[in-house]
Amino acid sequence: MEDSRKRVEVCFSPYLYPLFKDEFDIIVVIDVLRATSAICAAFDNGIKSLIPVTSIEEAKEYQAKGYKVGAERGGAIVEGFDFGNSPYSYMNPDLKGETVVLSTTNGTKSINIAKPDGLVVIGSLINLDALTEWLIQQNKNVLCLCSGWQNKFNLEDTICAGAISEALVNTGDFHSIEDSSIAAKYLYISAKDNYLGYLKSSSHRRRLINLNLNEDIKYCLTPNQTNVIPILKGDQLYEHKDLDL
Amino acid sequence: MEDSRKRVEVCFSPYLYPLFKDEFDIIVVIDVLRATSAICAAFDNGIKSLIPVTSIEEAKEYQAKGYKVGAERGGAIVEGFDFGNSPYSYMNPDLKGETVVLSTTNGTKSINIAKPDGLVVIGSLINLDALTEWLIQQNKNVLCLCSGWQNKFNLEDTICAGAISEALVNTGDFHSIEDSSIAAKYLYISAKDNYLGYLKSSSHRRRLINLNLNEDIKYCLTPNQTNVIPILKGDQLYEHKDLDL
Repeated sequence: MEDSRKRVEVCFSPYLYPLFKDEFDIIVVIDVLRATSAICAAFDNGIKSLIPVTSIEEAKEYQAKGYKVGAERGGAIVEGFDFGNSPYSYMNPDLKGETVVLSTTNGTKSINIAKPDGLVVIGSLINLDALTEWLIQQNKNVLCLCSGWQNKFNLEDTICAGAISEALVNTGDFHSIEDSSIAAKYLYISAKDNYLGYLKSSSHRRRLINLNLNEDIKYCLTPNQTNVIPILKGDQLYEHKDLDL
Repeated sequence: MEDSRKRVEVCFSPYLYPLFKDEFDIIVVIDVLRATSAICAAFDNGIKSLIPVTSIEEAKEYQAKGYKVGAERGGAIVEGFDFGNSPYSYMNPDLKGETVVLSTTNGTKSINIAKPDGLVVIGSLINLDALTEWLIQQNKNVLCLCSGWQNKFNLEDTICAGAISEALVNTGDFHSIEDSSIAAKYLYISAKDNYLGYLKSSSHRRRLINLNLNEDIKYCLTPNQTNVIPILKGDQLYEHKDLDL
């Protein structure tokens, strides 16, 4: 008898995405430190839309056209741009109602590789409960695509993916068959009571601490600060309430 | 100040191996269910050497030359071959002193992709303590290469890799910087008191149970049944005591 439950699976990095694509209706892109947390913060602050671009060249073209553009590589703001991917940069009242452009090391790349294959939705810890509730309502096959770090696995994205998949599986309407999804769930369960402590030794947290970004880390690891659910339509992300899906 | 400790890292699947290669002196290939467990069982039973081959065609060529050849695909013995990768097949007294040829879905592939880049050593739970003790003595940079399942992450190989890396890191002479290594260690720690229970839901365990291979699973998940350390020299694996490294 065929299993009528929908699937929710976890893909550890964009590099592994070719092994997962084509099987999912919704792809949740996750880059906890910090792109998808910053995107959620931006929508929470009332931006109209956000254009994720892969290359610095594209980001520069938008800048030349007068857009407000953020660009980050290796954790730092790219020279010549107004901001990088610190969530705090997106809380500026000047950005309300604006369209913002963003290019980051890992997160915006993941958005663009997933784009042809399904509905792309932005996931982070800061919009966790709102996102999982919305995913449960959709009742479709969901892939959590972790952005990782330079194509490699990272802990914080995996834990966020584990939190999403565990919430969906717990409804009884979803199941996971991949070992990566089971591992993400196990890692989430052992991390959930103390994200900061658990990620103490994570490679990207060390990278950001070296850049004096401890406040960013705390913000990004604090769940449920907003109810926004940014969704890609065409080349732009919009808050889901503004979309007629 | 440069860190004088050696590195021990975990690569989740052969697909990710290009992101890790060239940085390690020793590559421990792990395929707990069942290729590397079977290889250790074979050396424990006194075989002289083992030739890992990637394709069924190569396996057939060796068969035509009179070798004893095992071949497995998708968990089952390939038609026309004497055995697959059940460890019990390799306990046959007739194999003592012989050279055996083996081709499997994942494990022998990993051995062959790692071959050009460093000393290839066979890891499993059944030779865990002997292997880690030997690795500690070598004091070189070690990559644990999980064979996974069809290029994807699997739990049992990752847990074995986590066991190896945790033992090495605990000496103080090794450290890990990759998040994959940290996750493998966390997964090992939560699994170590009950491998069978922990892996209950793992995808490959389900696959093998469907093939009535429960006895194989129990054997492969029982640590420290042998002290053999199979090492690749040229195209063949030998027990390390028979090698002049």
